[in-house]
Amino acid sequence: MSDGIRIIEVGPRDGLQNEKAPIPTPMKLTFIQDLLNAGILEIEATSFVSPKWVPQLGDAVDLWPSLPRGGTYSALIPNQKGLDRAVSVGVDRIAVFTATSDSFTKNNINMTVEESLNAFSEVIGSFRTVYPTGWVRGYVSTAFECPYEGRVDPRRTVAIAQRLEALGVDEVSIGDTIGVAGPIEVKNLTRLMEDAVPIEKIAYHFHDTHGTAIANVAQALELGIKSFDSSAGGLGGCPYAPGAGGNLATEDLVYFLQRSGIPTPIDLYQLARASLEILKTLGREPLAKSQLAALAASETSPM
Amino acid sequence: MSDGIRIIEVGPRDGLQNEKAPIPTPMKLTFIQDLLNAGILEIEATSFVSPKWVPQLGDAVDLWPSLPRGGTYSALIPNQKGLDRAVSVGVDRIAVFTATSDSFTKNNINMTVEESLNAFSEVIGSFRTVYPTGWVRGYVSTAFECPYEGRVDPRRTVAIAQRLEALGVDEVSIGDTIGVAGPIEVKNLTRLMEDAVPIEKIAYHFHDTHGTAIANVAQALELGIKSFDSSAGGLGGCPYAPGAGGNLATEDLVYFLQRSGIPTPIDLYQLARASLEILKTLGREPLAKSQLAALAASETSPM
Repeated sequence: MSDGIRIIEVGPRDGLQNEKAPIPTPMKLTFIQDLLNAGILEIEATSFVSPKWVPQLGDAVDLWPSLPRGGTYSALIPNQKGLDRAVSVGVDRIAVFTATSDSFTKNNINMTVEESLNAFSEVIGSFRTVYPTGWVRGYVSTAFECPYEGRVDPRRTVAIAQRLEALGVDEVSIGDTIGVAGPIEVKNLTRLMEDAVPIEKIAYHFHDTHGTAIANVAQALELGIKSFDSSAGGLGGCPYAPGAGGNLATEDLVYFLQRSGIPTPIDLYQLARASLEILKTLGREPLAKSQLAALAASETSPM
Repeated sequence: MSDGIRIIEVGPRDGLQNEKAPIPTPMKLTFIQDLLNAGILEIEATSFVSPKWVPQLGDAVDLWPSLPRGGTYSALIPNQKGLDRAVSVGVDRIAVFTATSDSFTKNNINMTVEESLNAFSEVIGSFRTVYPTGWVRGYVSTAFECPYEGRVDPRRTVAIAQRLEALGVDEVSIGDTIGVAGPIEVKNLTRLMEDAVPIEKIAYHFHDTHGTAIANVAQALELGIKSFDSSAGGLGGCPYAPGAGGNLATEDLVYFLQRSGIPTPIDLYQLARASLEILKTLGREPLAKSQLAALAASETSPM
């Protein structure tokens, strides 16, 4: 991507996992093809979590071999069992998920942070015996604040990121899971982080719960961060209420980059159409601001 | 306000003017009282535009004398006739409205930019004969881009701001009327502007059509701008489609400031309740992100 800015589309995994309605596999494949057509090339496609826990992504083993050509895909791996299923269908890019606080990881993955790091050490080791150069991403959730424990000391976040790096991950995705951080916190954390983890290994994963996501991206970009997670149409629902922002919408991220003079190969209108289709399937209204604007603009101009 | 950051609440004027449903005067007064109770003290309360053109604000002459004590109010004045009506009820803080492009002003106030500046010269002169120290704000709309003429040369925006200043305005409010600007444009314009107009006289009026409003506020703050317009609950509807952002929501602005360590006397929950009530009256759903978050948080915590 131009200027080296990478967008990691997490809608098909992080987005759909948080939607109540399960979606048939062919519709997911159409969605992913639509994303590719819009120029979105790097996609976290699914999770190999137990279908019992997350039925929405229970079709991972069927989905993966059918993914359309042309994309760079990864999958979330919760444990060794998930890795076995993933490797059985050829998954060579994986992501593992921890957080800064035990109460959050206990609630989400039923392990303490320490237990999760130990588990992932084995998962990553096992993965690398199959794919010695396979790509691994580590998520650090609740990087700024935990819904159970409140504000997080940025040194704690840096320490977890370092632990993941020591496990050999290629990238650390730093998540503002509940969407509360502002740019000052992003500045503080990034500066601490860059002394501990090479900056090119850091990605940010912002939520737009309070409308600060783009301000946070702008701040991170200024400090040299080049990788950002986002979700088409803001998929991933709303931690609070209908209409409240969850994941940063890819449309808003793309709009911001393009308006900032950072060219991307992404067609905002095609992206907005792709999001519209999957939101329709989910019975949800479009809410991402730039998605609405792109769709509305298309109604008034010949496209 | 702490740190000298001013919030100019424009919901009762800029917001309600763009809502289809007219609101009875007592409901507006309740809304304004609720805003005061939440700590919002500076409010553009109405417009003395002809009731024929903007029936939603046709009650300005009745509203003004009944405004609750404790607020600092201003009113938009479109012309000499509007000023006469305003002065007759004691309006001593006024705002006048122009833009960077003739096609925009022709469409909105049926004058070219030059004609509007000539008209406002007379209006301001006339106002100052009644209130020699009366406060005057001048709006420069379409400061970054015009919906009819496209991108605006920032030197043009600076020139209009200078013309307003030469007419003796106390403040220039620079408006991203269609909500398209990103922080780089804000940086460029602010730097040009500060060579021409004292920085303490500059306010920004952002729209959140593409989710960039808070990023723009953050950029402007960094450059020393201390005054920002916003609208409770994002009132003012949506230039594009339901759900698309119009005015920057006061809730999002307040959240951002507070999270940035800039204390404000505003109670975010009370503000969100005030917006909720007026949105209910308008038959609209809450959409401002921080409003939703504040309301949802109150449901889970004893408030």
